[in-house]
Amino acid sequence: MITREDCGRRDETDELAALREWFTLPDGVVYLDGNSLGPVSRGVRRRVDEVLDGEWATGLVRSWNSAGWMTMPTRLGDQVAPLIGARPGEVLVADSLTILLAKLIGGALALRPERHVVLTDARNFHSDLYIARAMAARAGHPVEVRAIDRSALADELGPEVALVVLTHVDFRTGEMLDLVGITAAVHACGALLLWDLAHSAGAVPLDVTAANVDFAAGCGYKYLNAGPGSPAFLYVRRSWQGVLENPLPGWLGHARPFGFESTYETAPGVRAFLTSSPPVLALAAMEGALEVFRHVTLEQLRAKSLALTDLFIGLVEERLAGEFEIVTPREHDRRASQVSLRHPESDAIVRALIERGVIGDFRDPDISRFGFAPLYLRYVDVFDAVEQMVAVIEGEEYRDARVVVRDPVT
Amino acid sequence: MITREDCGRRDETDELAALREWFTLPDGVVYLDGNSLGPVSRGVRRRVDEVLDGEWATGLVRSWNSAGWMTMPTRLGDQVAPLIGARPGEVLVADSLTILLAKLIGGALALRPERHVVLTDARNFHSDLYIARAMAARAGHPVEVRAIDRSALADELGPEVALVVLTHVDFRTGEMLDLVGITAAVHACGALLLWDLAHSAGAVPLDVTAANVDFAAGCGYKYLNAGPGSPAFLYVRRSWQGVLENPLPGWLGHARPFGFESTYETAPGVRAFLTSSPPVLALAAMEGALEVFRHVTLEQLRAKSLALTDLFIGLVEERLAGEFEIVTPREHDRRASQVSLRHPESDAIVRALIERGVIGDFRDPDISRFGFAPLYLRYVDVFDAVEQMVAVIEGEEYRDARVVVRDPVT
Repeated sequence: MITREDCGRRDETDELAALREWFTLPDGVVYLDGNSLGPVSRGVRRRVDEVLDGEWATGLVRSWNSAGWMTMPTRLGDQVAPLIGARPGEVLVADSLTILLAKLIGGALALRPERHVVLTDARNFHSDLYIARAMAARAGHPVEVRAIDRSALADELGPEVALVVLTHVDFRTGEMLDLVGITAAVHACGALLLWDLAHSAGAVPLDVTAANVDFAAGCGYKYLNAGPGSPAFLYVRRSWQGVLENPLPGWLGHARPFGFESTYETAPGVRAFLTSSPPVLALAAMEGALEVFRHVTLEQLRAKSLALTDLFIGLVEERLAGEFEIVTPREHDRRASQVSLRHPESDAIVRALIERGVIGDFRDPDISRFGFAPLYLRYVDVFDAVEQMVAVIEGEEYRDARVVVRDPVT
Repeated sequence: MITREDCGRRDETDELAALREWFTLPDGVVYLDGNSLGPVSRGVRRRVDEVLDGEWATGLVRSWNSAGWMTMPTRLGDQVAPLIGARPGEVLVADSLTILLAKLIGGALALRPERHVVLTDARNFHSDLYIARAMAARAGHPVEVRAIDRSALADELGPEVALVVLTHVDFRTGEMLDLVGITAAVHACGALLLWDLAHSAGAVPLDVTAANVDFAAGCGYKYLNAGPGSPAFLYVRRSWQGVLENPLPGWLGHARPFGFESTYETAPGVRAFLTSSPPVLALAAMEGALEVFRHVTLEQLRAKSLALTDLFIGLVEERLAGEFEIVTPREHDRRASQVSLRHPESDAIVRALIERGVIGDFRDPDISRFGFAPLYLRYVDVFDAVEQMVAVIEGEEYRDARVVVRDPVT
C-alpha cells in the first residue's frame, strides 16, 4: 500500500519542489488540468505589470523599438526553441495554433504540387482536421485529406502523399507517438511532416533537430503556462526557411515592414511567417511564464512527470481496481504527461471531483482526463486526488454532480 | 492670434475634459500618436488584474465558463458594434486585422465565383494589399487584384468586379472616404464591399447598417486604446451570416465545439468566423479599454476631434505658414482624426519633436503625422505641440535629431 507519508517523503527529496512557489494555485485545489490551461506564475505578473505600468504607459508608441516589442515573436521563439530541441532562429511565437497550422499546411502543400494526398490521424484534434481540409481545398491543385487510423500509417504512405499532419500526443488518451520513427518513415516516402506539439512542449523532451522534423507548431497555454488563449509557436527547420512560403502574408513578415511597399517581399528567416503586429500583452505574459523553465532541464521535468503518472496509475490500480479502464499506455516511451481513465460516468465523476477541489476534465464520450504538470504538482497532490476519487466512487457522488466544466482547450 | 489662454478656456468648457482622467499619460508628453497606439486606461488595468488575480489564478480552467471567457469574442463584439453602427450579433473580436481580412476576403470571393476582379486602392495599407493578393491566389478560380487610383473607382467598377477592398481613412493623409456613397456605387455594379476601419473606429461616427456595408474589420490598438497588437474586430452584416464561409475554420467556429466532431459544421451567426480559443488576457484589456466609450457619444467625440484638428491646422497656418504642406483635407466630411503635414525633413522633424515630448510619427517619404484623440487630448496640448514645432523649425533642431521611432502600427 502506498501511503500519504510515502508521498510526502518523495516531495521532501524532490529537486523540483521549490518551483511550485512560482505559481499561484488556490488553497484546497489539486490542479490536474495543466494540460488544458496552466496556472499563472509570478513571471507572468511581473512582465504584464512591466508592460502596463512602464512600457505601454510611459513608453507609449516608442516602446515598439525601445522596449523591444517588435522583436518579441522571434525573441520568445528563441526561448521556446530549447524546449523542443530547435535551434535559434527556427521558432516564432504569434497568432493561434490553428492559424499557424494553416500557414504551415498551406506553405507545405505548395512544395509538393505533384502529390495530392494529405494524411492525418482520424483521432487528431478536430481543429487540426478542419484546417487541414480548408487549406487543402485552397491549395490551387487537387488535394485530398485522408484521415486514417494512425496504426495504418505505414501502409498509407506512398508516392502520392505530400504531407502528413500528426499530433505528437493524443489529447484524449495521452498516448505519445514515435516522433523520430514516424518522421523518418514519412521522409522515406518523400513526404513532409508537420507535428502538432500542443500536448508535448514543456512536458516531454523533444528534439526536432535530431529527428529532422520539417515543421511543427504548438500552443502556449498548456504546459507552457502562458495563459488562456495565449499565442502559439511555430517551428520551421532552417533548411526550409526561404523555401516554404507563408500563405497568409502581412506587413510584419515583409523584408522591410517600414518601407510601406505595395509589393510583398518575404522577410528572411522564420520572421517570414509573421502576419500582423505582435500581441504584446499576451506575449509579455508568455515571456514571464517561460522564465521558470530556465531553472529546470527537460530531463528533470520528464523524470518527475513519469514518476507522477506512475504513482497515479499505481494508486488507481490499488485503490480503484476495476472501476476505471486506464487508457493511457503504461510504457514510458508511449506516455506523455497525462493519464486518461475510461468510465461510463466520466462526465459526472469529473464534475463531482471538481466539487471536491480535484480539477481534471472530461472528454467525450467517456474519458476522465488528468494532467500531471511536474513544475508545480506534488506527490501528495496525486495521493489526495485519488483519495477524492475513491470517495466519489464509493459514495456514488457523481450521480449528484452539478458543476459543468468543459474548457475550450485540448 | 490664437493664444494658450484661448485654448485653456476651451478646455474649461470641454464636456469631455474629465475623460482624460481615465488614461495614464506621462508628464511632459503631448501624445499625438493615438492613431497608432492608444494609451493605457484604468479600465485596462482593472480588467487585466481581475483576470490575473481572480479568473485565471483562482478560477483556473473553470473560468472558461464561470468567468465568461468563452463568450468574450461576441461579448466584446457587441461592445464594439455601437461604435460602428452595427447591430448586436454582427461583430466579433479575435485574431489580428490582417487575419480577419483574410477570412472576409476569402469568404467573399467564394460568393462571386463568376467575377474575377478585386479592386483596391493602390495607396491602401500595404498589409491589406498583400493579403488581398494572397487570398485571390487561393480563391479556387482565377482572380486578379487591381490596385487602382481610388479617384478612378467609378470608372473601374464593372460586371467583372467581385469585391472592393478599401480603407475608410487613408493612413498617410488622414483623408476619409465617402463610405455611404462608395458602398452604394459598388453595390450598384453587383460587387461586394469590405471596409478596413482601422483608422475610423472610435474616432469618427460610423453607421455600417445604414450604409448597407457588407463586411468590415478594424483594429483595437488605435482609437480603441486596447493595447499594442490587441485583437481586431470583424463585422459581417446579418444578411450575410450563414452565407459567407470562413476560409480559416477552427473548432471555436464549429456549431458544437465540445462535440469534438471530425466533420466541420459552421456555427450560426458571427461566431462562424472564430478559429481558435479566445486570447483572454488581450480581450480583457480591450474590454477594459472600451469602458470609457460608455460615457461619451460618437457625436461628442466627432465634434471635439474636428475642433482639435481645426485648431491644429489653424495654428500651423498661423505660426508655420509656408513650412509645411497640409495634406489632410480641410473639409470636415473628408477629414478623420489625424492631420498629416508634408516636409522634406519630416523624418528628422518628428524625431526632434519626440525629443521635446511631442509624440507624432513619420510615414515615408515625407509625412509628419499627428493623431488627435478626443478622449484624452486637451486644446492646450494642441497649442503646446505647435509651440514645440515652431521651436524645432526655427532652431533647425531637426538637423540634430537622434531618436528614431518607427512604430509597427499604421
